[in-house]
Amino acid sequence: MNAPETPGQARGMRPGPLDTALRERAARVIPGGLWGHMRAAGLPPGYPQFFTRAEGCRLWDADGREYLDFMCSWGPIVLGHHDPEVESAAQAQRQAGDLMNGPAPVLVDLAELLTRMVAHADWTIFAKNGTDATTLCVTIARAATRRRKVLVARGAYHGAAPWCTPSLMGVTAEDRTHLLHFDYNDVASLEEAAALAGDDLAAVLVAPFRHDYGADQDLARAGFAQSVRRLCDRTGAALILDEVRTGARLDLAGSWEALDVRPDLAAWSKAIANGHALAAVTGTERLREAAASVYATGSFWCGAVAMAAGLATLRKLEAVDGVGRMREAGTRLREGLARQARAHGIGIRQTGPAQMPMLLFDDDPQAELGAAFCAEALRHGVYLHHRHNMFLSVAHRPQDIDRALEATDLAFAAVAARLG
Amino acid sequence: MNAPETPGQARGMRPGPLDTALRERAARVIPGGLWGHMRAAGLPPGYPQFFTRAEGCRLWDADGREYLDFMCSWGPIVLGHHDPEVESAAQAQRQAGDLMNGPAPVLVDLAELLTRMVAHADWTIFAKNGTDATTLCVTIARAATRRRKVLVARGAYHGAAPWCTPSLMGVTAEDRTHLLHFDYNDVASLEEAAALAGDDLAAVLVAPFRHDYGADQDLARAGFAQSVRRLCDRTGAALILDEVRTGARLDLAGSWEALDVRPDLAAWSKAIANGHALAAVTGTERLREAAASVYATGSFWCGAVAMAAGLATLRKLEAVDGVGRMREAGTRLREGLARQARAHGIGIRQTGPAQMPMLLFDDDPQAELGAAFCAEALRHGVYLHHRHNMFLSVAHRPQDIDRALEATDLAFAAVAARLG
Repeated sequence: MNAPETPGQARGMRPGPLDTALRERAARVIPGGLWGHMRAAGLPPGYPQFFTRAEGCRLWDADGREYLDFMCSWGPIVLGHHDPEVESAAQAQRQAGDLMNGPAPVLVDLAELLTRMVAHADWTIFAKNGTDATTLCVTIARAATRRRKVLVARGAYHGAAPWCTPSLMGVTAEDRTHLLHFDYNDVASLEEAAALAGDDLAAVLVAPFRHDYGADQDLARAGFAQSVRRLCDRTGAALILDEVRTGARLDLAGSWEALDVRPDLAAWSKAIANGHALAAVTGTERLREAAASVYATGSFWCGAVAMAAGLATLRKLEAVDGVGRMREAGTRLREGLARQARAHGIGIRQTGPAQMPMLLFDDDPQAELGAAFCAEALRHGVYLHHRHNMFLSVAHRPQDIDRALEATDLAFAAVAARLG
Repeated sequence: MNAPETPGQARGMRPGPLDTALRERAARVIPGGLWGHMRAAGLPPGYPQFFTRAEGCRLWDADGREYLDFMCSWGPIVLGHHDPEVESAAQAQRQAGDLMNGPAPVLVDLAELLTRMVAHADWTIFAKNGTDATTLCVTIARAATRRRKVLVARGAYHGAAPWCTPSLMGVTAEDRTHLLHFDYNDVASLEEAAALAGDDLAAVLVAPFRHDYGADQDLARAGFAQSVRRLCDRTGAALILDEVRTGARLDLAGSWEALDVRPDLAAWSKAIANGHALAAVTGTERLREAAASVYATGSFWCGAVAMAAGLATLRKLEAVDGVGRMREAGTRLREGLARQARAHGIGIRQTGPAQMPMLLFDDDPQAELGAAFCAEALRHGVYLHHRHNMFLSVAHRPQDIDRALEATDLAFAAVAARLG
């Protein structure tokens, strides 16, 4: 990160000239300039679209501007960019062979590690996208139960395929026929949805905590998680835990271990291979036969480099207590932000686990204060998000947090000036 | 490849001890031992499941046995394993940054290259799986037309999501509600299916030629392709060409260029990045707005290493006339096989483009002769497939084909002995 005072001041609130030129070229050959969650259009002023370099918890945009990063590529980077152990394992596998006519032995090593590490897991299947994993979980649950209905929390994100995407553009009504909704942490609404499903309930698909876009995060109450478990036990439906965003950041054994609730199936992706494209489904013995019966495949799903990266990532997270270190770094950030907000007389809400922080401002329904805050932090070299949860990595050391807090103090001052 | 006589003879018809041990471990932690198209269970006796090394057009199994490869990782390897230009570009991008908070500039370079190279393309979106690309095409077509029905050829493979997977396990009737079927190369059946769709026809999704599992391949007749185009023009439906298997092997400008037919949308994956996980959708100006309107994203879709690999792959294919070289290698193989079959008095059928060869035996509905042939070729160090089309790569030199033909001559002899 640059020192907060000098380069930040010189930056202004616009992306640099190289970023701007790339956006102009991109707008010609990519619809809307970019698709999906990495499109910068919804970000506060000044946020760059293109990046050229990343290292540890820092990244550099196309104009060479340096940022201390609190998005971690929207989750996948859990040990920091270019983690030496992960990249060395990946490179060794690449030298040997990546995508061949069948998997490499590392497939077995990684499947064994996951089934040992994840408490509920008796088996694993690998894929490429988080959406692959959630879709597979639903398909396996339907194959196992010969039923169709799936309960999901209202507003929850479980992927980008027609059956689950947040947009209805290009989606047909039939893609959603068998989805029923409940409110997260609301047992009564869960039971109502289950009653609607009747004897056709195949699965409950639920995230370990509520992490909806633009909303306060909401940790699962133990009573709610246990009610989901009991509902599934009572009806024979599969409890599917969507660990795509949470996996490898809350608890390597499974994010509901502390609540004493284990799923039948879990979907993993994002952080399990430190940025290499990998997803996984884990399941219990009861679902093994159904998992073997469904058609699941992809051209690159047996790629060995991503598996070598996954193996190194999970081993290192275990060895260095990665979850604990991220929690500590996140707590240091959260406490600092809370102190600063109080000092500036600004009301904020910090919700969810410290290692996946969400920061929203009081009386700010359109996140305008949040945007102003983040834009100012960005000017001072800190990349935050105003409406999505952020991510810590093992590469965030205490001194990185402290430097980030220098920038956020200036950002709070800017918000205070705007408010008053 | 080992010399055909000695090590081949010593091999017997069973996988090696290390492969066997890995299968036993895998069976405990992976349903059915492996999922999907790379599962060795359906292959002839002796085929290994696990591979440890690959280079050019050769690969080595877990027991160190060497094979001359005619599956090319089921398509993705188009320049040969570890192509130096591709790997050097990928490595340079990895040193800089792979998955960051937004794409790297190489995204724009690659989108520009594809829109220049592919005749119909005015824009590109990148993804990870072939299924991502076909699903996106259908979603974009529906968003553009506000209609729902999609025509697909009976028996065609277009991916592994519930709406298109060849299996019905875990799939609901509603996943297929809006699919209507026609027979490939049959204009009358195409028009019948279109009539059933009525004014709700969103798209025709079709492969450049028929390449169904276990069946003779069938090149598209020009009249059929042109009828598909006229149907789409007449109805306003989108013509989606599924180039996932064919892309980068038939014609870099699009596989129906020689038939003078251009699609509105095309799905690409497999070979476009020489084994790195990448997929793409290309489309025309008319579909741009719809493409920008749908929700399309994945955690790893902006990963820059795969894009750098894709850029290097397509540039090299263009520079060395990769398609022409694969066609020559495939033709040399095909002519040799035809000669050998005649000499041994065995009836075979070789169908489809030479660079994606399909070899089936006459009077062999269960592919038992094909399996015996392939098992014997494998014993002599040549990896073929008895029921799926095979793939050539630019790394297959004439001398590699000639060595493969030494093995296939012995394999034909074994089949002849079996026949009588």
